[in-house]
Amino acid sequence: MEFQNLDRIQAFNELKALKPVSLKEVLTPSRIASSWVEAGASLRYNWAAMPVGEEHLAALQKLSDEAGLIDKYRALLDGAVMNTGEGRQVLHHLTRGQLGAPVIVDGEDRRAFYEQELEKIKVFSDEIRSGKVVGSTGKRFTTVVQIGIGGSDLGPRALCLALKGWAAYKKIPTLAVRFISNVDPDDVVQVLSEIDLEETLFILVSKSGTTLETLTNQEFVSQALREKGLLPEEHIAVVTAANSPLHKDSDIMVPFYIDDYIGGRYSSTSAVGGLIISLAYGFEIFRMVLDGAHQADRQALNPSIGENAALLDALIGVYLRNVLDLPSTAVLPYSQALSRFSAHLQQLDMESNGKSVNRNGEAITYPTGPVIFGEPGTNGQHSFYQLLHQGTDIVPLQFIGFRHSQYDRDVTVQGSTSQQKLNANLVAQIVAFARGKEDTNANKNFAGERPSSLLYANRLTPELLGALLAHYENKVMFQGFLWNINSFDQEGVQLGKVLATSVLKGSKEDPTLKAWAKIFTL
Amino acid sequence: MEFQNLDRIQAFNELKALKPVSLKEVLTPSRIASSWVEAGASLRYNWAAMPVGEEHLAALQKLSDEAGLIDKYRALLDGAVMNTGEGRQVLHHLTRGQLGAPVIVDGEDRRAFYEQELEKIKVFSDEIRSGKVVGSTGKRFTTVVQIGIGGSDLGPRALCLALKGWAAYKKIPTLAVRFISNVDPDDVVQVLSEIDLEETLFILVSKSGTTLETLTNQEFVSQALREKGLLPEEHIAVVTAANSPLHKDSDIMVPFYIDDYIGGRYSSTSAVGGLIISLAYGFEIFRMVLDGAHQADRQALNPSIGENAALLDALIGVYLRNVLDLPSTAVLPYSQALSRFSAHLQQLDMESNGKSVNRNGEAITYPTGPVIFGEPGTNGQHSFYQLLHQGTDIVPLQFIGFRHSQYDRDVTVQGSTSQQKLNANLVAQIVAFARGKEDTNANKNFAGERPSSLLYANRLTPELLGALLAHYENKVMFQGFLWNINSFDQEGVQLGKVLATSVLKGSKEDPTLKAWAKIFTL
Repeated sequence: MEFQNLDRIQAFNELKALKPVSLKEVLTPSRIASSWVEAGASLRYNWAAMPVGEEHLAALQKLSDEAGLIDKYRALLDGAVMNTGEGRQVLHHLTRGQLGAPVIVDGEDRRAFYEQELEKIKVFSDEIRSGKVVGSTGKRFTTVVQIGIGGSDLGPRALCLALKGWAAYKKIPTLAVRFISNVDPDDVVQVLSEIDLEETLFILVSKSGTTLETLTNQEFVSQALREKGLLPEEHIAVVTAANSPLHKDSDIMVPFYIDDYIGGRYSSTSAVGGLIISLAYGFEIFRMVLDGAHQADRQALNPSIGENAALLDALIGVYLRNVLDLPSTAVLPYSQALSRFSAHLQQLDMESNGKSVNRNGEAITYPTGPVIFGEPGTNGQHSFYQLLHQGTDIVPLQFIGFRHSQYDRDVTVQGSTSQQKLNANLVAQIVAFARGKEDTNANKNFAGERPSSLLYANRLTPELLGALLAHYENKVMFQGFLWNINSFDQEGVQLGKVLATSVLKGSKEDPTLKAWAKIFTL
Repeated sequence: MEFQNLDRIQAFNELKALKPVSLKEVLTPSRIASSWVEAGASLRYNWAAMPVGEEHLAALQKLSDEAGLIDKYRALLDGAVMNTGEGRQVLHHLTRGQLGAPVIVDGEDRRAFYEQELEKIKVFSDEIRSGKVVGSTGKRFTTVVQIGIGGSDLGPRALCLALKGWAAYKKIPTLAVRFISNVDPDDVVQVLSEIDLEETLFILVSKSGTTLETLTNQEFVSQALREKGLLPEEHIAVVTAANSPLHKDSDIMVPFYIDDYIGGRYSSTSAVGGLIISLAYGFEIFRMVLDGAHQADRQALNPSIGENAALLDALIGVYLRNVLDLPSTAVLPYSQALSRFSAHLQQLDMESNGKSVNRNGEAITYPTGPVIFGEPGTNGQHSFYQLLHQGTDIVPLQFIGFRHSQYDRDVTVQGSTSQQKLNANLVAQIVAFARGKEDTNANKNFAGERPSSLLYANRLTPELLGALLAHYENKVMFQGFLWNINSFDQEGVQLGKVLATSVLKGSKEDPTLKAWAKIFTL
């Protein structure tokens, strides 16, 4: 398997020669109807409002083939060491099913390991939800609080929020969900002031067992439990690596294991996301999330860009970033349930592909990962869309939309339901951005030609959520392959950690650091 | 008063000739100590880690003087029609105090009008909080829910979150606060499922009284109230313009008025933000927010960049945007209380300055407002900071930090408190971004030279929050003056509204719109 920089690939040079098509000219009903690509689990991707035509698609297919994107994905599934810097396999796909050869690492079949943890989650969440296991004063658990940061927070938080309305619609009993992430003491203090500790189960999540933010918040929680006469070991479950110092803390609750082959931002389908989802909404819902993700993973194996949404989404993104030179992308879900999904994607994408050296440690001379941001529509329309429509820079957009709402409760006002209004707005935005509108008053003129794509499904079910999550993971992976970077490490977060430790130790030999620290009386 | 495009100003051409200074070379303890600028109300701005030196500062001062930034601000305060497109005055500063000449519009002194509304807020919030006015079944109000979108949502929401910990620290009785904004029915349905309607007061906020999202959500709420046998007119207060159709809806509760001279994104210090803050935490706290904002407004009148943080922050931002060509900026508050403050700033900045025509309606040939995004630290460190440190693009950063936490409760773990850890991280990040770190392993190499600034204060009090809010409003205003754009309209949101209405009416004459609508069965 050959790895080479994007600008060394012949098809990329062909792509570079292609001017964008004019959306005003090409965006017709027939193009819209013929621009669908399957993403798995009934999630579909539409690229009609992207500035590409037949020639571009041919070049993108060639680029995919020449870069061996599907071969590289297959190699990853088969257990190749794709996280080169850290010398590790990349196995998050295995948490939802087996698509490649068995992967034996650390003397164990990794799929069997993930299945075993899944079974433990099922048993434990059933015990908690049924009231078989209760708090240390005998009360049933009604609230579950995850203590974790980064990937142990953003993905699980986004998924829990996204499932809440669906669980209510299905009348599934739920536990209240909270998260504690920030080392700012105000975060944990505020959460603790709003929950009943006797009825609260905490999940402490840290792969290494040494994440300082998380250990500090654990201490906060343990103190609060003890002050109430509660036993921390009966109120705190642990998700960690088998070799971490954490799993010895509790003798009563079984620890849940994760391993080194799944990065934090890819860990939502491991115990990191699975335990809290299963506790809050039941194991069956988590199982459905996994099924949806697995379907998307399988769809992403298709070598044809016409049948592989993650692949095409990735390739068009590279055209926007490396040919049209657009530095940021907005992700705009028209669903309140996805209100924190963009924050998860921000980590997933920017932490994975915000790199400037290739897999061989050589400096890269073309742009890699863009800035990712977004808020749910229609809220964003009343906020930053002004710049998207009439600002001096073009920001590519990705809309996410659903035919039905989650709760399926609605009112009719002025002849339409809220869900119809929501989607009428989504549809209107696509056209407004693409086509613009001429006006003799320049202030009311819209230049148009602002590209967008759409991820669409009937309803935001757990399967669909899983597929959506996996779609983005796979898109980010394909883009990492194209840029020839390692999307699975995060060396960029290390320097800050080292310097922070130095500050806390007094930073004696670093007058500059000390000068800043003095401001905060550290 | 002369308005001209940025590139016609002599000092800008001088600025353009100046290369950025190397942060690795200049960032010393003495520079850090001498780079403070007052922002008002004890908020201070430090530019030591920005790539500017003496020559730049001289050029920036000249640019400010030549562009007449302070004169323009004074003119705005005196009631000049600065919102040119809409032919209106810009009067949000007047909600916090009088700094210019009396402004008489619509036959009324506007300051007197805002003071009168303020007095109404005081009386009403006292009545609600004391239990003098109760719900229609005689129960005291314990929850207040704001129904509004855009500026009626983001600013008030960010402020309420930011005040919560302080109110707890001061042991001030609070009402629970919720917001309903999205037209997605799941938003209102979820909020309604989690509150006790008998004890809930709603605030309906729409200046025009015609915002479809807000009217639709009002209908949802009214139906839910009636279903419970509650009287909507005793549970819904209204904030709207005097000429809006809304204020006739309620005969029992006095309507609160806003006017056309304050844009949504600048309305947090009007009744739009003031009513909910006063209901939730008491009028005195809102009064303190106003005082802090007023102090920052006054500070922003200082013509010297060495004594006017909003002015210098704006000018350095223009250097980054228009000379160094950096297209986005991250705002990174190291305070969980500011967890949604960046979302407010995203609207404030991007909706104000995401424009590409000047005040005369001529196309502009230089970049204007950047993309703004951000999440609280340390959370962001475990998320998108990877790209900020090692991505191919440089993203300027603005840190916000406080010496003390809000709740003032903490634990010591490994020899330091959480607040110390939080601030040690902030300090470490400034140095890591600026200085980088050489490593023979390119993957662990940090190029450095990534600029940041710091807004710092002792504690996030209500005054400080007001000053922080006003600092950004004034910064955005100064940048709008520099770019010669109108920062106070938002024509870019209109086209989407028109097309959405067309979709809801069947969009008969627009086959493309109809093709998209068909996907959502509209």
